[in-house]
Amino acid sequence: MDLSLFFAGTAGSVPTARRGLPALLLRRGGDRLLFDCGEGTQRQLLRTVGLPDMQAVFLTHHHADHWLGLPGMLKSFELRDRRSPLTVYGPPGTEALMGAMRIVYGRLRYPFEVVDLEAGEAVEFDGYEVTAFNVRHRSHAFGYAIVEDPRPGRFDAELATRLGVAFGPDFGRLQRGEVVDGVRPEQVVGPDRPGRKVVLSGDTAPCEMLRVAAHQADVLVHEATFTEEERERALETGHSTARQAAELARDADVRLLVLTHLSTRYAGGEIRDEARAIFDRTEVPRDFDSVDVPFPEKGEPELHRYDAERARA
Amino acid sequence: MDLSLFFAGTAGSVPTARRGLPALLLRRGGDRLLFDCGEGTQRQLLRTVGLPDMQAVFLTHHHADHWLGLPGMLKSFELRDRRSPLTVYGPPGTEALMGAMRIVYGRLRYPFEVVDLEAGEAVEFDGYEVTAFNVRHRSHAFGYAIVEDPRPGRFDAELATRLGVAFGPDFGRLQRGEVVDGVRPEQVVGPDRPGRKVVLSGDTAPCEMLRVAAHQADVLVHEATFTEEERERALETGHSTARQAAELARDADVRLLVLTHLSTRYAGGEIRDEARAIFDRTEVPRDFDSVDVPFPEKGEPELHRYDAERARA
Repeated sequence: MDLSLFFAGTAGSVPTARRGLPALLLRRGGDRLLFDCGEGTQRQLLRTVGLPDMQAVFLTHHHADHWLGLPGMLKSFELRDRRSPLTVYGPPGTEALMGAMRIVYGRLRYPFEVVDLEAGEAVEFDGYEVTAFNVRHRSHAFGYAIVEDPRPGRFDAELATRLGVAFGPDFGRLQRGEVVDGVRPEQVVGPDRPGRKVVLSGDTAPCEMLRVAAHQADVLVHEATFTEEERERALETGHSTARQAAELARDADVRLLVLTHLSTRYAGGEIRDEARAIFDRTEVPRDFDSVDVPFPEKGEPELHRYDAERARA
Repeated sequence: MDLSLFFAGTAGSVPTARRGLPALLLRRGGDRLLFDCGEGTQRQLLRTVGLPDMQAVFLTHHHADHWLGLPGMLKSFELRDRRSPLTVYGPPGTEALMGAMRIVYGRLRYPFEVVDLEAGEAVEFDGYEVTAFNVRHRSHAFGYAIVEDPRPGRFDAELATRLGVAFGPDFGRLQRGEVVDGVRPEQVVGPDRPGRKVVLSGDTAPCEMLRVAAHQADVLVHEATFTEEERERALETGHSTARQAAELARDADVRLLVLTHLSTRYAGGEIRDEARAIFDRTEVPRDFDSVDVPFPEKGEPELHRYDAERARA
């Protein structure tokens, strides 16, 4: 099952010529979930991977740079005759916020729902769930953990054969937990293996809850609005420096740290270098870059640079 | 005095990979006025000519594709410490609309005002004025006429010399209306010449008021959401076809017709061809193209294609 992250917007607060406002598209098999939806997100997607009929949009908090692209996108779905349901999740107050925005998107004919989540609440999808947790920002803000269901353990086909089970449908029975010819599943199937975990910080100052949620995540997407030079400002505004994000990634023992939400004053290199001095497995995507998240036995999570020429072809 | 139009977004209703939502920047000397401000406008400007501290934003009407970029732009100005005043003008209800959007842009420290205009009302700037007029759309919608003050008539220097006026400061006195050595200004200065006129249709079905306002305009920017194949749909939705816009431009005797607000189904060529069959002096800009509007004696208004390579250099 493919799992990847598409970075549709990597700026914080104010867009720049190169970076759009926050939006991250999670792709798992045929599922599409959008996390935050800054102004211009629908067009960032249209210009690259296309605007998908995502099942859900998760808002991390209610600062306008994180949701102002949503009302226009809802309206565009209506104008292109979307039929599939869409749910918007967010911290308490999301329903009221989207209600106030009805003046923009009007009547929608596709099933549309807005759900206020409580911290700790999980939304279930087919094969994984998305759990909201509190982070530390100026407003009530969530991070999100996307956690796959455990996978069945590894099946030892060689051992099964030696125990006299015939290659074929009986292999499947054992893997589904049935006893076959006196051979018990636990003899040939290893313990359940954990699914993959992707954790998104949203906007936050360094916080313990995030460190716990991110423990041994395959990918931690963390905001890095500033470098250490602006550590005071980061503290005042409820944001993190690249170094702080890297320290948290190191302490949480994640496989890959991905930094976004850069202040307009940074191009990206200074953020990356500051973080890598602490935690080497760090990437700073540009808009439209993506990160593939394979199962651990298949390889490491990896950043793929967006190839505009190839995308146009 | 330079006068030009920069097309920051040329799509209607829904953005495409190539066309952003409606926004047109008028540049005259150091003045910058924005007409409509669809979602993503601030970034369309940032990516090209820069986001200027425009003096005013004029909204043609209240459909979201024409103003949803405004609240985020107001907020960005605040975050970059804008000091100069900004006024937003629009049809009745603009004040209420922007009031409802306060939840997005919050408190602004620069002088900010919202003004509901009545049809026929003019806003004066230094050397020109912007007049709102009613057009025919589903909601209360304005077109705008930007009209320069009349220029003094041509000064006949040769005749002034023959009448005995010495080359030098006396020439200036005559041009400012003073009698010099018995020579009266009207002997050597021709009648006032009209200033330039640029007319914007906003969203509209063909309408007589627009034809009158556009009479002998230097440039008429007219919406052309559809071609004739969708004439019925244009009528139902209060929009125009390329042919209808061209007929109006011909009847109004304008110098150049510029078509925007294209439905996603068109690339541009079919709109242009349909209009040119009726009115040859027609252009269909892509995003970031501009139109220069010289005084009539200096040349014709002309479309300049955006050169992305040169812009980056």
